[in-house]
Amino acid sequence: MSSLQAPAGLQPSASYSFTMRIELRQVPGAFAAVANAIGQAGAMLGAIDLVRVDQRGATRDVTVACVDAEHGQRVVNAVKALEGVTVSSVSDRTFLMHKGGKIEIVGKVAIKTRDDLSMAYTPGVARVSSAIHDDPDSAWTLTIKGNTIAVVSDGTAVLGLGNIGPEAAMPVMEGKAMLFKELAGVDAFPLCLNTTDVDEIVRIVEGVAPTFGGINLEDIAAPRCFEIERRLKESLDIPVFHDDQHGTAVVVLAALLNALKVVGKHAEDVHVVMVGAGAAGLACAKIILENGVRDLIVCDIGGTLHPGRTDLTPELAAMAARTNQRGLVGSPDDALKGADVVIGVSGPGAFTAAGVRTMASDAIVFAMANPTPEVQPEEIWDDVAIMATGRSDYPNQINNVLAFPGIFRGALDVRSRGIDEAMKLAAAHAISSVIPESDLGPEYIIPSVFNRAVAPAVAEAVAKAAIESGIARRDRAPRQADVPEAFAP
Amino acid sequence: MSSLQAPAGLQPSASYSFTMRIELRQVPGAFAAVANAIGQAGAMLGAIDLVRVDQRGATRDVTVACVDAEHGQRVVNAVKALEGVTVSSVSDRTFLMHKGGKIEIVGKVAIKTRDDLSMAYTPGVARVSSAIHDDPDSAWTLTIKGNTIAVVSDGTAVLGLGNIGPEAAMPVMEGKAMLFKELAGVDAFPLCLNTTDVDEIVRIVEGVAPTFGGINLEDIAAPRCFEIERRLKESLDIPVFHDDQHGTAVVVLAALLNALKVVGKHAEDVHVVMVGAGAAGLACAKIILENGVRDLIVCDIGGTLHPGRTDLTPELAAMAARTNQRGLVGSPDDALKGADVVIGVSGPGAFTAAGVRTMASDAIVFAMANPTPEVQPEEIWDDVAIMATGRSDYPNQINNVLAFPGIFRGALDVRSRGIDEAMKLAAAHAISSVIPESDLGPEYIIPSVFNRAVAPAVAEAVAKAAIESGIARRDRAPRQADVPEAFAP
Repeated sequence: MSSLQAPAGLQPSASYSFTMRIELRQVPGAFAAVANAIGQAGAMLGAIDLVRVDQRGATRDVTVACVDAEHGQRVVNAVKALEGVTVSSVSDRTFLMHKGGKIEIVGKVAIKTRDDLSMAYTPGVARVSSAIHDDPDSAWTLTIKGNTIAVVSDGTAVLGLGNIGPEAAMPVMEGKAMLFKELAGVDAFPLCLNTTDVDEIVRIVEGVAPTFGGINLEDIAAPRCFEIERRLKESLDIPVFHDDQHGTAVVVLAALLNALKVVGKHAEDVHVVMVGAGAAGLACAKIILENGVRDLIVCDIGGTLHPGRTDLTPELAAMAARTNQRGLVGSPDDALKGADVVIGVSGPGAFTAAGVRTMASDAIVFAMANPTPEVQPEEIWDDVAIMATGRSDYPNQINNVLAFPGIFRGALDVRSRGIDEAMKLAAAHAISSVIPESDLGPEYIIPSVFNRAVAPAVAEAVAKAAIESGIARRDRAPRQADVPEAFAP
Repeated sequence: MSSLQAPAGLQPSASYSFTMRIELRQVPGAFAAVANAIGQAGAMLGAIDLVRVDQRGATRDVTVACVDAEHGQRVVNAVKALEGVTVSSVSDRTFLMHKGGKIEIVGKVAIKTRDDLSMAYTPGVARVSSAIHDDPDSAWTLTIKGNTIAVVSDGTAVLGLGNIGPEAAMPVMEGKAMLFKELAGVDAFPLCLNTTDVDEIVRIVEGVAPTFGGINLEDIAAPRCFEIERRLKESLDIPVFHDDQHGTAVVVLAALLNALKVVGKHAEDVHVVMVGAGAAGLACAKIILENGVRDLIVCDIGGTLHPGRTDLTPELAAMAARTNQRGLVGSPDDALKGADVVIGVSGPGAFTAAGVRTMASDAIVFAMANPTPEVQPEEIWDDVAIMATGRSDYPNQINNVLAFPGIFRGALDVRSRGIDEAMKLAAAHAISSVIPESDLGPEYIIPSVFNRAVAPAVAEAVAKAAIESGIARRDRAPRQADVPEAFAP
């Protein structure tokens, strides 16, 4: 039965789980045969619900976690092959969860009576609209603007799937909206655009901006993402934040700060190699340079960035001019020799276990390619001090979810006009500080994505930094007294 | 104390209500003096809540309904003038209801565990995105698209307030979103645009369209609204519906159908005068022509439309060519002579009580200018058979709320590509049919906006009409079996 085993090195996951409805003859050992077939196929048995029992037999809903769709099909086939077992339906749990979309828009108060209607809608709403017309800043208080952001994507760089278009990007943006609400109470609405033209995207986002207190750009391919963000930051007076760049950079910096503490090294002294020079890689490079790292080499698909390269975009040329002071020419593996830290935001195999073994002692490896890391952790566990990935099934998961909810919460709380470098650094330090120094260790450099202390800590630090930067519109949390009164007592 | 009376002819309303916190000395008759002062000022006393009592006295929150802000100020002043009474705060109930905005975006499922996260977001969401990329139509099932519309405005024609801009339009659009959800379960998100350029508005709406299953245009000034709607209907494959035009027309037709039944006249025989030729007036004129009315005169601010007018826009010239077959030149009042029906969608005084008295017997008058009707009902109660307005404080309120929730519900249920004339007529007939013929009467020609039977009846009729028109993508209601399965049993 070896062909029924789970693929090597991959774990069954809820994201590939399904629920089978099976009908079993009422004979001893009937269900044991099903459980045995599932186990032999390398899948994980989850919930088992009894649907009904009658004279002929029992009907049960059985939830099974697999590693991928093909594996799931083999599990179903294995159960169907059993004597006396009928599989009457198969429901994919992930698809069921997405059915009808994952978010909804609800009123904060019910409209049940004529009085409700006359206050929430006509004629009472006219007074509220007039008040905003007289004082546009009151839109922050009297509309959803103060707590609402847009999650904007053109669907060109979605997860590892690439340019899949706006409709296919929607489930990701809806999931992000859920996380904004769940972790930070931010109302986020996805807008997936059917254009990839920079001018059009800029104009569309500018056009809808009055509704929102912030713009989260998401999964827009480089290099267009740089120009879109730059132009929107110039033209809008609300935060514009490309999460793939800056969210990643904030969380990488947070992890790096704690990793350096664990190995007892300092940012000023370490030699860092960044493998991957897309939007995320460049943002990570910039934030660690701003945070004290002096010896950095960045690699793209052509090897190390250096001033002699003639094939560089303006962004890459600017980075080449700021880094690689020893002028090293070579592959990522060449650059790893003697390095203290390597940060991979590229793809599987971009650097190798052999390369990692040439690093300095107490090496720190962040292999964040998703879903398959640059180097499999199992290959280098024994050779490095600290290993982190983007995955949830290894220790030290580096995930943007730690950053974006709290960053926008903090920015909205003080009605910030933007998100500047100081706010990003404050967010990184807040994330790293959630773990007490006494608890830090090689397998615990970054908080769990479910640590509820993270978002509030980030929000507070970001709000404080915005006030200090002078880009906040208010210097304190909202209070009841902020409600405008139509006539004073 | 006559100066403290409520303004003549206006009723105190919840939309102008406020809550005063008052401190009263503990002496007999203290509160009676407050209640008396409020009554003498012409305001309505609402809820009275005891906040606390101590040795010095009692603190109470008193809710009072007034007719406008100035009236409210006079009421507060009257209470403050009382011996032994202190007003410590005044909270405007309408503004309180709008504080922080009136809608929020919430997840349909909680994300509490790593399994939840792996299905709603990464890595599981990648399978859902891939499925949509392979079959774009599945976005209707697997994202919010199938139940979500945009409420789009540029803030140029908001209520009776005119061009107040996008921020000030937001409270109206949020209120509309609440009604969509409350009455028809439709998720509606407001997008208020900071441009009034036709090309830009068209391009912005086209750009965000992948997220939505329909577009409700709202409060966009004529004549730009005509071109915007026409171009979007051509370029998009989802319903585009300018509610100010078509929602109004649907409800007017519904009311007219029942009014004609009450007076025993037929559409083919009646002489109708439309006063007002803006977006709403022209749409009303078109729908009643489509529904059998043959003798129609439309008036704008220059009097009756007729082919001799040289000052007409293309829309008005086209309407002049279809109507006024007797070639009448004159004012609205001139046109009323002998007419059976007058429909006002203009402003106070556009036609007069004297003009109404020259109409045929059993006259039907819809005076829908808001908040002040063309003619005050009190002036002509005795001269007409049926009187309707846009107001909630007279019988026969003609309000778009009766139409738009059910129309979009029906369109979304069958994934319609548009909203055509047959669907609008079906909606009008559904609204009028909610009232059994035996219940119809001069003061009951249109259902209440809180009649919960209206939206489902409209939705069913609209869905059926869309299927018959051939613009529906599906011919039945959604079922569980529509969930895609990753692998078949």
